[in-house]
Amino acid sequence: MENTRQSDTDRSIRHASARRWRDGSLEPFADSLAVEEPLEIRLGGRRFTVTMRTPGHDEELAAGFLLAEGFVNSPEEISEVRIVPVRRGAAQENVIDVILAIPAGQLRDRLRRNFVVSSSCGICGKTSIDAIERRIEPIESALRLGGASMLKLPAMMREAQTVFRATGGLHAAALFSAAPALNGAGSGIGLVLLREDVGRHNAVDKIVGRALMDRMLPLKNAILMVSGRLSFEIVQKAAAAGVPILAAVSAPSSLAVELAERVGMTTVGFLREGGFNVYTHPERIV
Amino acid sequence: MENTRQSDTDRSIRHASARRWRDGSLEPFADSLAVEEPLEIRLGGRRFTVTMRTPGHDEELAAGFLLAEGFVNSPEEISEVRIVPVRRGAAQENVIDVILAIPAGQLRDRLRRNFVVSSSCGICGKTSIDAIERRIEPIESALRLGGASMLKLPAMMREAQTVFRATGGLHAAALFSAAPALNGAGSGIGLVLLREDVGRHNAVDKIVGRALMDRMLPLKNAILMVSGRLSFEIVQKAAAAGVPILAAVSAPSSLAVELAERVGMTTVGFLREGGFNVYTHPERIV
Repeated sequence: MENTRQSDTDRSIRHASARRWRDGSLEPFADSLAVEEPLEIRLGGRRFTVTMRTPGHDEELAAGFLLAEGFVNSPEEISEVRIVPVRRGAAQENVIDVILAIPAGQLRDRLRRNFVVSSSCGICGKTSIDAIERRIEPIESALRLGGASMLKLPAMMREAQTVFRATGGLHAAALFSAAPALNGAGSGIGLVLLREDVGRHNAVDKIVGRALMDRMLPLKNAILMVSGRLSFEIVQKAAAAGVPILAAVSAPSSLAVELAERVGMTTVGFLREGGFNVYTHPERIV
Repeated sequence: MENTRQSDTDRSIRHASARRWRDGSLEPFADSLAVEEPLEIRLGGRRFTVTMRTPGHDEELAAGFLLAEGFVNSPEEISEVRIVPVRRGAAQENVIDVILAIPAGQLRDRLRRNFVVSSSCGICGKTSIDAIERRIEPIESALRLGGASMLKLPAMMREAQTVFRATGGLHAAALFSAAPALNGAGSGIGLVLLREDVGRHNAVDKIVGRALMDRMLPLKNAILMVSGRLSFEIVQKAAAAGVPILAAVSAPSSLAVELAERVGMTTVGFLREGGFNVYTHPERIV
C-alpha cells in the first residue's frame, strides 16, 4: 500500500475543545474532528460544481467524479489539473481547475446529456430520471474469490483507516487486488489503496480517480470495499471503473442491487469477520 | 407519536433473495432491502432536481428541501404539492410538482442566489463556495435540557426505527419535544416525529417539511437527532428550521461544528446510552 503523506493526515484532522457528559457532569476534553471543507471544481476555468469533502487527494476526487459522471472516459482526456489560488477575505479557498482535452462540441454533448440548467441536488443535478441511468458497460471479469479471503477484508481496511481511528467521523473506500502478494503478505489478496472522506461517494471518487490516472482501468481483478451502506450511486461509480466485486460493511439499497444485477457486478453486504451476504452474481464467490 | 401508515412501511421495504456466507458455504435466504428510488421534484411544472430517496412522505421531502435551500420561507409560499402520474415504459415514475405562491421576480432572485447554469453535485449544485453559506438566522431559544434526558433519546429513536430493524439499511431523523408529556409518558421529553430514508439529509428534510406544513417553525423547544454523523449540510437544514439542539449517534465534522457555533446551535455527538459529547453551546445542557 502506498504511504499516506503526513500532511494529508494533518489536513484531515482538526483539533477542537469539547465537553464529555459522564456520570452527571460535563468535563472539558480535547477532541479530533474530521475536516469537512467545500471544494469548487472548475472545468477549463468555468465553475462546475461544489462538493463538501475532506481535503487531500483533490485531483483524484475531481478525476474520479468526472469519470463516474461520464464527462471523461480516459486519462488522455484530462490534460491538466490545477490547484487555483483564490483568496476570499482571510480564507484560502479550495478551488481546482480541470483542463480537458475534449473537443468543444463533444464536451457540450456530454454536459447536455448529464446536466441541465438550474438543476441541483442529490444525484448530481441530473434533472430527469432518465439521465440517472447512464449507459454503463457490462462488467467483464473472470475474477473468482474464496469466501475465506472475503472475510479478511474488514480487518485489512480498518487497520488502514488512520483518520477514522482519530476522529470516528470518516467514511472509507478500499481497493483490494486479488492478484497474489501485492502487499507481500502472500495471502492472495492485498490492499492497494485506501481513501477516507466525510463523504462515502468522495472516498470512492478518490479511489477511482487514482486508478484512472494510473491507467489501471478497468479494474478487472479488483474488489472495492466501502464503509457503511451501498447505494445506487456507489454501484454506478464502481461500475464506471469496471469493478467486478463491490463489498460494504452495511446493507445495500434496493436500487443498488438492481443496478448491480443488470451490469453483472457481484455485491456483498454486511461484510464482517464472521460472515457476509451476497446479493448479486454470487458465481464470483467460491 | 403519529402512526406510520402500513403502506409507507410497505413502500420502504423490498424483499429479495440473497445468499449468506456462514461456515464455508453460501446459503440462500430471503432478505429485506431498504427501497431507494429517484424522485423528480418540479417547480411549477419545470424540472428542478432529482434526488434518490426512500418512497413515502414525498410532499414533506419536497417542502423541507425547498425550505432548507432558501426557496421557501413559509407554508403560505407553497400553494399546492401534486403527485404527477408519469409512465415511462412499464414503470410508474416518482414525480412531484410543487406550485409556489411566490411572485416570479422574487423566485428568479432566489434561484439565482442559490443555483447557476450547469451546476451539479454535492451541496445541491451551488456553484460557488460563497453560495454555500447562506444567511441563516441565529437560533433563538431558551431551551435547557438535563443530561439525563439526553441519554434517553437513543433508545426512543431506535424503538421507532421500524424499517431499519427490518433492513439495517436506513438512516433516521427524530424530532423530540422538550415540552412535557407530548407522548403521554411524563418523562419531560417526547418523540414527535420519526422519518427513515436511505439518505440522512432526506430524513431531515422530511422532518423539517412536516414541521413547516404543520406551522411548527421555528422549532424553539425541539431536539433533532440523526443516525450516523453530523455534516455541515445537516446543521444547515436544522438551522433553517430553528432547531436549538442537534444530536447525532456518531461524530460531527469540523465544518458542522463551525457553523453550529456561529448560529448558536448546541451540537451533541456520539450520543449513546452511556454518555455523549457536546461540541458547541453547552449552556443548554444542564
